[in-house]
Amino acid sequence: MKFSINRSSFLRTLNDVSRAISTKTTIPVLTDVKIAANASGLVLTGSDADISIEATIAEDDESNTLTITEPGAILLPARFFTEIVKRLPEDDMQLIVGDNLQAVITSGASEFTINGLDAASYPQLPEISGDNSLTLPADILHQIINQTVIAVSTQETRPLLTGVHITIDGSKLVAVATDSHRLAQRSLTLDGVDAHADFIIPGRSLTELSRMLADDVKSVDLRIAENQVLFQIGTTAFYSRLLDGNYPDTSRLIPTSSTTRIEFEAPALLAAINRASLLSHEGHNNVVRLKIEAAANTVTLFGNSPEIGNVEEKLSFAKLEGDDLEISFNPDYMKTALQGLGQSSIEVAFTAPLRPFTLVPSEDHENYIQLITPVRTY
Amino acid sequence: MKFSINRSSFLRTLNDVSRAISTKTTIPVLTDVKIAANASGLVLTGSDADISIEATIAEDDESNTLTITEPGAILLPARFFTEIVKRLPEDDMQLIVGDNLQAVITSGASEFTINGLDAASYPQLPEISGDNSLTLPADILHQIINQTVIAVSTQETRPLLTGVHITIDGSKLVAVATDSHRLAQRSLTLDGVDAHADFIIPGRSLTELSRMLADDVKSVDLRIAENQVLFQIGTTAFYSRLLDGNYPDTSRLIPTSSTTRIEFEAPALLAAINRASLLSHEGHNNVVRLKIEAAANTVTLFGNSPEIGNVEEKLSFAKLEGDDLEISFNPDYMKTALQGLGQSSIEVAFTAPLRPFTLVPSEDHENYIQLITPVRTY
Repeated sequence: MKFSINRSSFLRTLNDVSRAISTKTTIPVLTDVKIAANASGLVLTGSDADISIEATIAEDDESNTLTITEPGAILLPARFFTEIVKRLPEDDMQLIVGDNLQAVITSGASEFTINGLDAASYPQLPEISGDNSLTLPADILHQIINQTVIAVSTQETRPLLTGVHITIDGSKLVAVATDSHRLAQRSLTLDGVDAHADFIIPGRSLTELSRMLADDVKSVDLRIAENQVLFQIGTTAFYSRLLDGNYPDTSRLIPTSSTTRIEFEAPALLAAINRASLLSHEGHNNVVRLKIEAAANTVTLFGNSPEIGNVEEKLSFAKLEGDDLEISFNPDYMKTALQGLGQSSIEVAFTAPLRPFTLVPSEDHENYIQLITPVRTY
Repeated sequence: MKFSINRSSFLRTLNDVSRAISTKTTIPVLTDVKIAANASGLVLTGSDADISIEATIAEDDESNTLTITEPGAILLPARFFTEIVKRLPEDDMQLIVGDNLQAVITSGASEFTINGLDAASYPQLPEISGDNSLTLPADILHQIINQTVIAVSTQETRPLLTGVHITIDGSKLVAVATDSHRLAQRSLTLDGVDAHADFIIPGRSLTELSRMLADDVKSVDLRIAENQVLFQIGTTAFYSRLLDGNYPDTSRLIPTSSTTRIEFEAPALLAAINRASLLSHEGHNNVVRLKIEAAANTVTLFGNSPEIGNVEEKLSFAKLEGDDLEISFNPDYMKTALQGLGQSSIEVAFTAPLRPFTLVPSEDHENYIQLITPVRTY
């Protein structure tokens, strides 16, 4: 194999596929990056068995200044090779692999010789046919991910809950995640789509995927197979394993009525929750208390740590209606929920001190709902 | 105690004194910040026993909008109190301490009640008289620190070597540090100064001190006592413990002649060392090798890791004179030395493969010298 290339094009693609490469893998070959040069360009592959990323650098895109003189393939230690490429002295670099599996990397007066491995020892990526596919706008996909992945479980005791459950029925897409203490559900109508799918994708895969949806990405092609999903982003293919099993029916968890409703500005409420959690974090059970007094038209937030002290704050709100209520909850769940809601005005709706309460954006409240289970404090 | 103050003025000063406050202290009271309100203003104190910082916020400086209604003093948990002040909702804040040692902090609709401790339980700061004092320009002090502290030892086995040895003899100041593998010495003539001093100050104290020398600080007053030094920076007093003992005589270590001299641009040499150390860091003994061939007018840098591979690079230089030489050294010492030299052109002078070599700036080479001991590789 022999090619020369613009170093920053190469480094950018190397960083993209490195997202899938873990240094803590039990399969040694997966700490490597696979580099293959063929007729159409350079193909880089990284994988941690759960996520695989395959990116192509086209020879006919002049900005890459890619010239392949000799096709071939090699595996090189990913972290180390990336460090080298990052620090090479010139704008261009050359890579030559001889018969001995040694890669010689040159740039300016600097010459690295690195021991590689036979590319044939790298695992095959799954093959996913084009039968079950649809196209999503990248910004919408990014939003769906960020609004749901915040509620997935980080505990492996119930593996299904570490994923986001996505169902597509005709033109309607619903994404839902819950760790059994809180839930986030995003719904969406996809114009001109008529598809059917039902799958659970690991939260970590979605987090990595969303990092690849930079501003210049306009759309993503989605293809679903038995136990794999493929997101095609331009010349980059992002594969993820799917979780196998029946996701719990979450629709019955979402309350359909409420007895107390308050409208807040999300950023102001978030700031108050952050203050109250300073004290709750020092306590044993990390709980804050909200006291709603309808007649007095006041909402007060309390945080307390027996050793350090306490905080109380009268919250400002746009609207309060319904019954008096006192409710305690984990402020970290509220923080994450509010981050998912961004700068918007929101409605929080309660039914009883020990029943889950909901957060929805005041506008477009049909399509995004979050649910938080309160904490019993007595 | 009762006062109100501009929150950002207060936070800035709180952050300054917090530099001296460690969360890992064996003296519990030192995790607190001392806050005292007296006739002239607010005095904040933090200490870790080695370093103490006392900062005054003047009531007559209008930008502080400080109003002291009732004098007094309290100790509050530093890390925690700082987090509270950082997150308060309004530009102004008020602090009231009642008879029960509870501090009530209010800002807008938010009210924190925090348990404090009696200020009398805080250790007294040392008293340092004004007899032995001098004034240093802040930028010069900053430079002296950054150019020498890089060579102090981080090992407590020889405690004296964790400090910088400073001698002032008339108008001449010499600062030197060595960890026995490398050495950095900065000399300076102080205009209009005639003083005599000889002390060893912990490197960590100087590092913290240099962080307080922001661009708006013009000069620093230095006062030296038996086992303490005081740097007065505007309204902030920075105290450091001194190290007790006889610092080794380092003057005889510095070579007075050389057989090979090379002039490099420091940034280009640093970039090449960074590349070579990528491989040496993976090897067992972290060594790079420099091969100087005078007749061929080439200087080549080699890095090697038996498992991963090797690198070689022909270095560019402005001038080479003297004998051929091959020398091996720890690239990390060279990196640190080059960082101390900044963007300048430098001269590296060698005498023999196992004798220390020196780095000096090409300009002003009388006043700054660094020395690195090579490594035997056979």
